Amino acid sequence: MKRIVLLRHGESVWNRENRFTGWTDVDLSEQGEIEAAHAGELLRREGFRFGHAYTSYLKRAIRTLDIVLRQLDAQWIPVSKSWRLNEKHYGNLQGLNKAETAAKYGDEQVRIWRRSYDVPPEPLAADDPRNPRFDIRYRGIPTAELPLTEALYDTVARALPYWQCVILPALAHHDELLVVAHGNSLRGIIKHLKGLSDEEIVSLNLPTAAPYVFEFDDGLNRTGDYFLGDPDEIAARMEAVARQGNAKR
Amino acid sequence: MKRIVLLRHGESVWNRENRFTGWTDVDLSEQGEIEAAHAGELLRREGFRFGHAYTSYLKRAIRTLDIVLRQLDAQWIPVSKSWRLNEKHYGNLQGLNKAETAAKYGDEQVRIWRRSYDVPPEPLAADDPRNPRFDIRYRGIPTAELPLTEALYDTVARALPYWQCVILPALAHHDELLVVAHGNSLRGIIKHLKGLSDEEIVSLNLPTAAPYVFEFDDGLNRTGDYFLGDPDEIAARMEAVARQGNAKR
Repeated sequence: MKRIVLLRHGESVWNRENRFTGWTDVDLSEQGEIEAAHAGELLRREGFRFGHAYTSYLKRAIRTLDIVLRQLDAQWIPVSKSWRLNEKHYGNLQGLNKAETAAKYGDEQVRIWRRSYDVPPEPLAADDPRNPRFDIRYRGIPTAELPLTEALYDTVARALPYWQCVILPALAHHDELLVVAHGNSLRGIIKHLKGLSDEEIVSLNLPTAAPYVFEFDDGLNRTGDYFLGDPDEIAARMEAVARQGNAKR
Repeated sequence: MKRIVLLRHGESVWNRENRFTGWTDVDLSEQGEIEAAHAGELLRREGFRFGHAYTSYLKRAIRTLDIVLRQLDAQWIPVSKSWRLNEKHYGNLQGLNKAETAAKYGDEQVRIWRRSYDVPPEPLAADDPRNPRFDIRYRGIPTAELPLTEALYDTVARALPYWQCVILPALAHHDELLVVAHGNSLRGIIKHLKGLSDEEIVSLNLPTAAPYVFEFDDGLNRTGDYFLGDPDEIAARMEAVARQGNAKR
C-alpha cells in the first residue's frame, strides 16, 4: 500500500485577522506553528517516512512543511515547490477582512463568492502592485497563465496538472509522499481523487494542519482516505471553517 | 557579473562540545541559529537574490539555509540537497571529543589526521550502526560509494562532481546561487576554484556562517572572491578555527 498525505498549512497571521489572503505571502501565526508541530507529531507517531514532499511558493505552506519535517527528523528529503499549489487568488479581495468586504460589496455578493464554484472575485488591475507578474518568484511563468483573480474552478484547473504530471507519478518510486498546500489547491486534488461534484467540493472545508491520508494500490488507484487525529475534533474544526466561510482562507 | 555564495553552516551542538561530527546529524546550537540569521542579514543588505540554493543531507546545513532564506524573504526558491555536499566522514572518530581522541590515539596520530590531505581516520566497521548504508536517506546510493571514513582527498573527490555537473552549470540560468554546506565539502570546491595545492587547502579554515562570495563572468570563469562582513572579525574567526583543529569541524 502507498500513501499520500495532504496537509493544509497551519493558521496564518491573516487567518486570525479574518482577511482574504490568497497569494499574499503571509507568515504563520504562533498558533499556526504549534498546529504544524502537532501535525508532524501525529505523522511521526504513525510512522510515516516520506520519500518526497511538495509545497507552494507561499511561506505559510513552506514553513508548515519545514516544521513537520523537523518533527519527523526528515529535513533531508527532497522538497519541490510550485506556484500551481498556491492558494486560490482572491483578486481585489486580498487584504480585506470579512466586515470590510461585506461593507464594500454587500452581503449577497459575498455569499455568491463564497458558495460558487465558477464566479471569481473582482480581478486586480493589470498595474496593481499585487499583480503576480511584478513578483520575481513568478518570473518564469507566462503572463497569460498568471491569475489576477480566480474562481475555485480556475484554481483547480492550474493545480491539477501538477498533481497529475508530478506528484502522483512520483508515487511509483516512493511509498509515501507529503503535499503541504492550501485550502483551495487541496480542494482541487481532493475533488479529482474522490470524483466530487462542483457543489460537493465547495462545501468541503479542510481544517488547518490536519493530515488527510489517501491510500493507493501499486497501480496508483485510490483505495481509501481518512484524517489522522481525533475524529470529533476534526469534525468540529471543519464546522468552524465552514462557519467562517471564504474569509478565513 | 554572476555570483555564487559558499556558506559553512552555523555552530552545531557538537561544534560547541568540540566533538568530531562528520556525518552525524547534529542540529544547530542557539549560537548557530544566531550566526545563520546574521549571515542572512548580511546577504539581504548586499541585495542578493538567489535563483537556486544547494545544501547537504545534514540538518545543521539545511537549517542554516532555512534561516538564511527566511531573512531574505526567499523561502520559495528551489533548494536541492545532495549527500555529496555532506561533511567529511570522520570514521571511528565521530562522536569523540578532542581530549578523548588524543587519549585514545595519541597526539601524534591526531596531528597527522589534522594536517594530512590523504590519511583517513580509522574506518567504521561494516556492521557499525553508524554505517551510512543503514540510514534510509542514503538508500539510493551504491554501497561502494558510501564512505566508512574519508581523508579530505575523498571528500573533495565526491563533492566536486556535484559542483561541476549540477551547481556551476545552473549559473548559466541564474545570476546568483547559494551553497550551504560544511567546512570540508566547501574546501573541495574552493580548492578547485582557486587552484590551491593539497597543503594550501588543509590550512584554509572557513569560519562558520561567513558568506564567501565568488564572482564569475558570463563564460562562468571565476573573476574574484571575497568574504562578506568585517575583515578583521573574519580573520580572527579563521584563526580560531585553525587553533581548534579538526576537532571543531
